[in-house]
Amino acid sequence: MTETVLYDYWRSSASYRVRIALNLAGVAYSTVPVDLVKGEQRSPEHLARNPQGFVPALDIDGVRLTQSLAIIAYLDETRGLDLLPTDPIQRAKARALSYAIAIDIHPVCNASVAAHAREISGREDAVDRWMQRFIRPGMQAFETMMGAFTQSPYCCGTTPGLADICLMPQIYNARRWGVEIDDLARTTAVERT
Amino acid sequence: MTETVLYDYWRSSASYRVRIALNLAGVAYSTVPVDLVKGEQRSPEHLARNPQGFVPALDIDGVRLTQSLAIIAYLDETRGLDLLPTDPIQRAKARALSYAIAIDIHPVCNASVAAHAREISGREDAVDRWMQRFIRPGMQAFETMMGAFTQSPYCCGTTPGLADICLMPQIYNARRWGVEIDDLARTTAVERT
Repeated sequence: MTETVLYDYWRSSASYRVRIALNLAGVAYSTVPVDLVKGEQRSPEHLARNPQGFVPALDIDGVRLTQSLAIIAYLDETRGLDLLPTDPIQRAKARALSYAIAIDIHPVCNASVAAHAREISGREDAVDRWMQRFIRPGMQAFETMMGAFTQSPYCCGTTPGLADICLMPQIYNARRWGVEIDDLARTTAVERT
Repeated sequence: MTETVLYDYWRSSASYRVRIALNLAGVAYSTVPVDLVKGEQRSPEHLARNPQGFVPALDIDGVRLTQSLAIIAYLDETRGLDLLPTDPIQRAKARALSYAIAIDIHPVCNASVAAHAREISGREDAVDRWMQRFIRPGMQAFETMMGAFTQSPYCCGTTPGLADICLMPQIYNARRWGVEIDDLARTTAVERT
C-alpha cells in the first residue's frame, strides 16, 4: 500500500470534490498545498505532476491521477462508493446533472479564466461580474434538472452521489461571489442536509 | 423501439461528439437542428428539452438525455462501445485525457462565453483572441498527457475511444480559429488516422 497524497489548494472546487470523495471512501491521505494565488501551479515541479497546471493531482495505489471527475470515478470504481445509480438511464441523468455544474459552470468560472476576463475588460469588478453572469443561470438550470429526481434528501437519492460532490463546492462559490441562490429550493435543501 | 432523435447544431462540438458515438454504435437517428446563431436554443421549445439551453439533446430508448459526455457514457454502457480501457487506472488516465479537452477547453470556448468576452472587452477581434488564448495551451497539455499512452493509432489504443471523440471536434475548432497545432505530433497523428 503506497501513501495517498493529494496536491491541492483549499479554495479549488475540483480539489474540494476529491476531498469529499476521499472522505466518503475512508481513504487516509496527506496533502501538499499548491498555492494558486502565488502561481505555484505553473512551477516546473507542479507541471511535472500535471501538464495542465491544475489542481488536484492525486498519488494513490502507486500511480498519479489528475482531473477531479476522473479521480472520483476511479475511487467509485475501486472503492465501491455507489456515486451513480445502477440503471443506465438514471446514471445518464445523474451524470448530466453533475456535468451541468462540473462542465458548464466550474471551468468557465476558473480563477484563471475570470482573471483573463478582467484583463480584457479593464474593469476592477470584472471578476465578480463574470462569476455572477455564469453561476446564477447555471445553478437555475441545475435546480430545474434536479426536478427529474425525487429528493431524498440528496440530489439523486438517499446517499451522497456525484451530483452532491459537484454541488457543494459550487454552493460555496456562489456565496463567495455574492450570487443569489436562496430561491433555489431543491439546491438549498441539499445544502442543509 | 422508439425513434432516436438528435437535437443538434452542425458546429457544436458537443453535438459532433454525440454524432461520432451514435455512428460508432451503429444507431440510426434523425436530427432536429437547433440554430445557435439564431438563438433557437433559448426558445421555450428547446428549454423544455434542455433547461440548460444547450445542444445536444437526444431522444433514445424512450427517454430524453442531455450533456454529451453523459450521453456518450450511456451509449458506451448500453451498446458496448468499449470507449474506455477496462483497467481502472488506465480508465482514469483515459478519462483525464478526454476531460482535458471536454472540461478544460471546450466550455471556456463555448460560443456564448466567447461572445460575452467580446462584449466586456469591446474589441471586434475578442472572440478570435479568446479562442487562441485557451485552445493552444489546452491542446499542448493534451499532447503531453497523451505521452502516457502508446499511440496505436488512436489516442489511447487500437480502437477509437472517448479521448478521440473529444479530440476530433477540438481539432476542427483549433483550425477554425487559426490556432497553430501542426507542431503537436501525437495530436495530428490521430487526426490523420
